[in-house]
Amino acid sequence: MIVVMQLGASQGQIDTVCEVIRRHGAEPLVMPGEDRLAIGVPAALSQDQRVSLETALGLVEGVSKVTQTSSPYKLASREFYPESTQVTVKGVQIGSDTFVVMGGPCSVESYEQFRASADMVKSAGAHILRGGAFKPRTSPYSFQGLQQEGLKIIKQVSEETGLPTISEVMSADMVESVAAHVDILQIGARSMQNFPLLIEAGKSMAPVFLKRGPSATVDEFLLAAEYVLSQGNPNVILCERGLMAFDRAYTRNILDLAVVPVLQESSHLPVVVDPSHGTGVARYVAPMAKAALVAGADGIMVETHPDPKAALSDGSQALDPTQFAALLADLRRIAPVVGKRL
Amino acid sequence: MIVVMQLGASQGQIDTVCEVIRRHGAEPLVMPGEDRLAIGVPAALSQDQRVSLETALGLVEGVSKVTQTSSPYKLASREFYPESTQVTVKGVQIGSDTFVVMGGPCSVESYEQFRASADMVKSAGAHILRGGAFKPRTSPYSFQGLQQEGLKIIKQVSEETGLPTISEVMSADMVESVAAHVDILQIGARSMQNFPLLIEAGKSMAPVFLKRGPSATVDEFLLAAEYVLSQGNPNVILCERGLMAFDRAYTRNILDLAVVPVLQESSHLPVVVDPSHGTGVARYVAPMAKAALVAGADGIMVETHPDPKAALSDGSQALDPTQFAALLADLRRIAPVVGKRL
Amino acid sequence: MIVVMQLGASQGQIDTVCEVIRRHGAEPLVMPGEDRLAIGVPAALSQDQRVSLETALGLVEGVSKVTQTSSPYKLASREFYPESTQVTVKGVQIGSDTFVVMGGPCSVESYEQFRASADMVKSAGAHILRGGAFKPRTSPYSFQGLQQEGLKIIKQVSEETGLPTISEVMSADMVESVAAHVDILQIGARSMQNFPLLIEAGKSMAPVFLKRGPSATVDEFLLAAEYVLSQGNPNVILCERGLMAFDRAYTRNILDLAVVPVLQESSHLPVVVDPSHGTGVARYVAPMAKAALVAGADGIMVETHPDPKAALSDGSQALDPTQFAALLADLRRIAPVVGKRL
Amino acid sequence: MIVVMQLGASQGQIDTVCEVIRRHGAEPLVMPGEDRLAIGVPAALSQDQRVSLETALGLVEGVSKVTQTSSPYKLASREFYPESTQVTVKGVQIGSDTFVVMGGPCSVESYEQFRASADMVKSAGAHILRGGAFKPRTSPYSFQGLQQEGLKIIKQVSEETGLPTISEVMSADMVESVAAHVDILQIGARSMQNFPLLIEAGKSMAPVFLKRGPSATVDEFLLAAEYVLSQGNPNVILCERGLMAFDRAYTRNILDLAVVPVLQESSHLPVVVDPSHGTGVARYVAPMAKAALVAGADGIMVETHPDPKAALSDGSQALDPTQFAALLADLRRIAPVVGKRL
Repeated sequence: MIVVMQLGASQGQIDTVCEVIRRHGAEPLVMPGEDRLAIGVPAALSQDQRVSLETALGLVEGVSKVTQTSSPYKLASREFYPESTQVTVKGVQIGSDTFVVMGGPCSVESYEQFRASADMVKSAGAHILRGGAFKPRTSPYSFQGLQQEGLKIIKQVSEETGLPTISEVMSADMVESVAAHVDILQIGARSMQNFPLLIEAGKSMAPVFLKRGPSATVDEFLLAAEYVLSQGNPNVILCERGLMAFDRAYTRNILDLAVVPVLQESSHLPVVVDPSHGTGVARYVAPMAKAALVAGADGIMVETHPDPKAALSDGSQALDPTQFAALLADLRRIAPVVGKRL
Repeated sequence: MIVVMQLGASQGQIDTVCEVIRRHGAEPLVMPGEDRLAIGVPAALSQDQRVSLETALGLVEGVSKVTQTSSPYKLASREFYPESTQVTVKGVQIGSDTFVVMGGPCSVESYEQFRASADMVKSAGAHILRGGAFKPRTSPYSFQGLQQEGLKIIKQVSEETGLPTISEVMSADMVESVAAHVDILQIGARSMQNFPLLIEAGKSMAPVFLKRGPSATVDEFLLAAEYVLSQGNPNVILCERGLMAFDRAYTRNILDLAVVPVLQESSHLPVVVDPSHGTGVARYVAPMAKAALVAGADGIMVETHPDPKAALSDGSQALDPTQFAALLADLRRIAPVVGKRL
Repeated sequence: MIVVMQLGASQGQIDTVCEVIRRHGAEPLVMPGEDRLAIGVPAALSQDQRVSLETALGLVEGVSKVTQTSSPYKLASREFYPESTQVTVKGVQIGSDTFVVMGGPCSVESYEQFRASADMVKSAGAHILRGGAFKPRTSPYSFQGLQQEGLKIIKQVSEETGLPTISEVMSADMVESVAAHVDILQIGARSMQNFPLLIEAGKSMAPVFLKRGPSATVDEFLLAAEYVLSQGNPNVILCERGLMAFDRAYTRNILDLAVVPVLQESSHLPVVVDPSHGTGVARYVAPMAKAALVAGADGIMVETHPDPKAALSDGSQALDPTQFAALLADLRRIAPVVGKRL
Repeated sequence: MIVVMQLGASQGQIDTVCEVIRRHGAEPLVMPGEDRLAIGVPAALSQDQRVSLETALGLVEGVSKVTQTSSPYKLASREFYPESTQVTVKGVQIGSDTFVVMGGPCSVESYEQFRASADMVKSAGAHILRGGAFKPRTSPYSFQGLQQEGLKIIKQVSEETGLPTISEVMSADMVESVAAHVDILQIGARSMQNFPLLIEAGKSMAPVFLKRGPSATVDEFLLAAEYVLSQGNPNVILCERGLMAFDRAYTRNILDLAVVPVLQESSHLPVVVDPSHGTGVARYVAPMAKAALVAGADGIMVETHPDPKAALSDGSQALDPTQFAALLADLRRIAPVVGKRL
C-alpha cells in the first residue's frame, strides 16, 4: 500500500499517517517525490487489517490517495500460480491446444428441437452442447425456459449423443439440481456478482463457466472467479461475452477481444469467447469466432438453432446448421496456422 | 411494431414480410418513405406472438430493422397507471411531499455500533434506518457482514427506537428470513437482474427498494421493477445509485440525476437517490443529496457511521454524526422552496 | 513516480530498474511490500525526463506497473494555486457568489430571432447572451450556422442591449475573427482536444469557455484547460455538458453533476453546467439547472428560443420565454438558501 | 419519419400531428398499434424540411417519439453505393485482397530515427510508412512533434525508400502543407468531428485516413466520412482504433473489432484497424492484428520503433524490429487461409 500526500501536506499530517500505519503493525517508509510526498507500507497485512488501514488513511487530512500494490486476487492470478489450468469435461480439455467449440440453442424448447440441435453440433464436429433451461430474461413477459423439464431433456440428449453439456444456473439453491443434470454450470453475465451463487457453485466442485458482466473490469471478473476458487473448486472457465455498448444500433454489445491475452497473462484459467452475445447478430458471429481463435482464445460458445426463424429466444443471433458447419470448416483450416486444432 | 426495409428491397421481399405478418394474424400496413419503405403491424399481439413475429421478421432478406412501438413494461408505466404510487412503511410515506431520508451504516458491525447509528439517524431527524447484514463484496476476502446475527440486531434496534428499517437481501431463498426482520427489502445494484430474487421479493408483498444496475438502461430498470410488480406486489421504490464510470480517479460511479425526472415521467413509482454509492466520497454526498432534492427525488439513502474511520466497509463514503446533522439542516432549509418538507 | 514490480521479480530485474532510474539522475528507493516490491523515484524531473524514464521503465522485464504521483496539470490545479479564479466579463463575475445564467438560442438564425432572444434573456434577468454563428453539426446536411453574418448580428445585438456575449469558435484560424465580435470564446465539447485551437484561444487572452468532451476524464479536461492557461491566459471557465450515454432513449447525454465539486476541489477555475445539452430535452432542463445551483456550480448555460417549434437546430432542448422566466424565478428563490444570488 | 403517439393521445393531438405533417408537404399515414398509435410521413423531404418537421413534431403534446427511417449518410452508404471502394496510393490498393500493413513510429524524432524506421518497415514487407510530425498530446508539456521539420523528413525518407507515407493533420489551415509532403492525410480520433478540418481534407482530394473517435457511434463515424465525401473526395479510409474504456488498468482503449464487418456492411469504404492505440500495449498488438485480418479488415496500422525504449512518445505500444518482422511473418501465413495476401 502506498499513500500519496497532497501537495504542501504539513509535517503534522505526515506524522499522523505514519502513526496510523504503525498502529496497524507496519513501519512507514517516507519517500519524497517530485511534488508530492509518498509513504509506503512495506508489510504483509491480513485483508481485514488492509481494509481497516486503507479506510483510516483515506480519512486523514492531507492524504491525496491510497493505492494498493498487492494483487486483489490470488488463486486466480498467474503471478501466484504460473501454470495454465486445464478443465477437463468428459474427455474434452478446455485450456489445451484444442480449440473447444460449444454450440446449441439459447433455450431448450422441446426434446425434438434439442435433439436436432445436438445432432447439428455433433455432425459439425463441435465438442460441447449448450442449452438454457432457466432463462434470465429482461422482461417478465418473455419465455422463461422449460426449467426442470428442460434439465431432463438436456440430460437425456447428452446420454443419447455422448456430448458433454452446459446450462445456466441462476441461483444458489438451484446449483445442486442443475449440477445433477449437466456437466458444466454456466453463470451468466448478469449473475457474475451473485455472490451466494458463486460460493455455492464453488462448493459443488462442478466445472464453472463464468461469464464476464457487461460492465465488469478485469479485476472484478477475476475476483468473481476467486469466489469460486476460494471454495476449493479449481475448475473455472472464464468467458468474455461483450461489454455494454453505447451504440446498440448495429450490435448488442461490444466484444472485447483484447481481454483474451489480458486474461491469459493475468490468470492461469482458460478463456472462452461468446461471439453470439458479443455481437447479437448471426452474420457477425463467424468473423468474431475466427478472430477469437487467432487472438489465442481457448474456445468459443456459439448459439445455434436447427431453424433460427422459429426460435423462442435470441433467434436473430443463432447460426443455422449450414452456417455452423461452414464456421467449423473455416476454424479447422485456420487453427493449425496458429498452433491449435479443433 | 414497425418493419423498415432496406433501400431497394424487392417487391418479393416486401411481399414476404407482409405474408409473415399475416401469418401472425395481423394486416400489414405498407408505408412508402423518403428512401426506405416501412411496414406497420397495426394489431394487438401477445408477448409470445410478438417475439415470434419479431424474430421471424428479423431474418427475412431485405429487412433493415424491426422497431417496437409498444411499451416493454406496463405495470411500472405511468402511461398505463397515471397516478403516483406511495409506499407507506410504518407511517413514513415514500412518494409524498415528504422528502424521505434513509441513513445508517454500510454494514451492521455490532449491536453497539448499530444502536449508535440509529440514535444518530433519529436525532438528525431522518426517517428510515439502513444497515447491511448480508454484504455483496467484490472480493471474497472482504468483510461479508454479520449475516443472521446482523438481522437480529436490526430488528432489536428497530424495536428499541421505533425506526423503520431497510436491509439488503441477496438471494431468493433469503427473502422470507430478511422480510421477517426488516421493513423494506433492498435489492442491490448487482442483483437488479437476479430474476429469481425479483420474483420472490414480489411474492413476499414487502416493500422492495430496487437499485438500478450500474449499466442498466431505463427500460431494463423498469422491466426489473415489472418482475416484482407482476407478482402482485405494488410496493416498489426505485433507486438511482450511480452508473459505471470510465473515470474512477475522483468518484466511484457517475450519479445520473437526470434519471429522476425521466423515471417520474415514465413511471408512477417513487424515486430515491443514493449519493453515497453514487459518488463514493463522503465530501461529495451533501452537494449531491441537495441536488437530488431540488431535482424532484422522493428521498435519499445516505451512508452514515458513528465513527467512519473505524468502519469495516465503505468508511470513506460515510458521513459522521456532525456531517449528517448538517446535511439534514441544509435539506430542511431548501425543502420548502421546492414544495417539499422533511 | 513509483514502479511496482511483478510478484517474484528477480534481483537482476530489480537492479536493472534501479540502474535505469539512476541513469535519469535520481536515486531509487526500494520498498518491500505485502507481496510485490515497489521502487520509488524521489526526485524532481523535467516532463521530458519523466516521459523518457516512464517509457524505459515500462519496457523492463519484471515491471508490473509505473504510476505517477505528481499532478499532470499545474496551472489549473488548486493544489498549486489555492485561490479561486474569477473571470469578469463586462461587469459579470463568473466564479463569485452570483450564480451566472447564460441564455440564448443554439444558432443565430436572423437579426430578428437573435434580438428577440436577447430581449427574452434580458427581461428574465439572465446575465450573458449565447448564440452560435459557426455550428458543429454531426451531419454535413444540417444547418451550419450563418457564420460571419451571424458574428455581425451577435455584435450588433450586444451593442444594442448591453449584454455580454458568448459564441463558439471551431478552429484556430477563426479565433481572431470570433474574438473581435464576441466577449467569450466557447470551445465546444467536440473541440476539447483540438490543441491548435486551445493554444490560439490561449494567445488571444479572451475569456475561454471550455466544454468537457463527452468521454473526457477529469484529468484530460483539466489538461485541456492547461493548454489555454499555459499561453498566459488565466480566463478559463470550465463547463460540464453531459457525458456519452449508453442509453439514449430518454436523454441525449448523462449529466455528471458530481463533477462540479470534483472540479472545484481539483481546480481554482469557475465551473458552469449546461443542462440543455446535458439532457437534450427541454422539460429536464429546469430540474437539472436547479440541481446545478445547489450542487455549487458557478452558473448555467441554457438554450432558449423565442419560438422553439421554429428553431433551425436543437429546438427540442430549448426553453421558450415562459419556461425560461419560470426557471429564473425558481433559481432566484433557491439561491439565497445556498448562499448565492442571481 | 415515423411519429409514435403516447398511450391515450387524444384525437385532437393526433389531428395536430397530421396538420403539422401536411404543412410540411406530406400526407400523414395513421397506423393503429398494439397500444400506441403511429403516424408515418411517406414522402421525400429535404434535410432542412426534415429537421424542421422533426423539431415541430417533437414539441406537439401527445407525441412519444419521432424516429427516422431514412439513412443519415448517403455517399458513405453501401445501400446507395453497393460497390466497394479501393483507395490506391502509389500502387498500394487499400480495400483489395491485399492486407495492407502501415508501420512506423508514433513521432518522427530525427532523420536517422525515421530512416531506420522506414528500413525496418520495408524489410519486413509492410506497405506504407507512418510517422507523426504534428502530435496531438493530452498534456501541453509533452513532446509536440518536430512539426514542419518532421514533414520534410517524411518527404525525404519517402523519396529515398519509395514508401508511400501517412501523417496526421490537426487543423484545416495545415491541410495544404501536410498534403504537399505526405501521401495520405490522417485525421486523428480526437479530430473526427473537427468539421472545418474534414471539409478542407475533402477539398484537398488527397486520400484521407479517418480515425473513429473514442466515443463515436457508427452513424457519427460515417457522417464524419460523409463530410469528406461531400466535398467530392472519394478517397476515404475508415480506421477503428479503440473505444473509450471504463477499465484502463490493462489496456488503454477497447478495440471494437466487430465494427469491421459492421462498417463493411453499412459502407463501401475500406476499413483498417489500429491495434497499437486499440490496446496501448506492445504485447497485445500482434494478437489483435491477426484478429483484425481474419475478421475481414482491409489492413492494419501498427506503431513500430527501431528502439522503443528510447521513443519520445508512445514507446510502450511500439513493436521493435524483431517483433514487427515476426508479426508480418504470422500475417503472411494466415492471410491465404482467409483469402487475402500481404
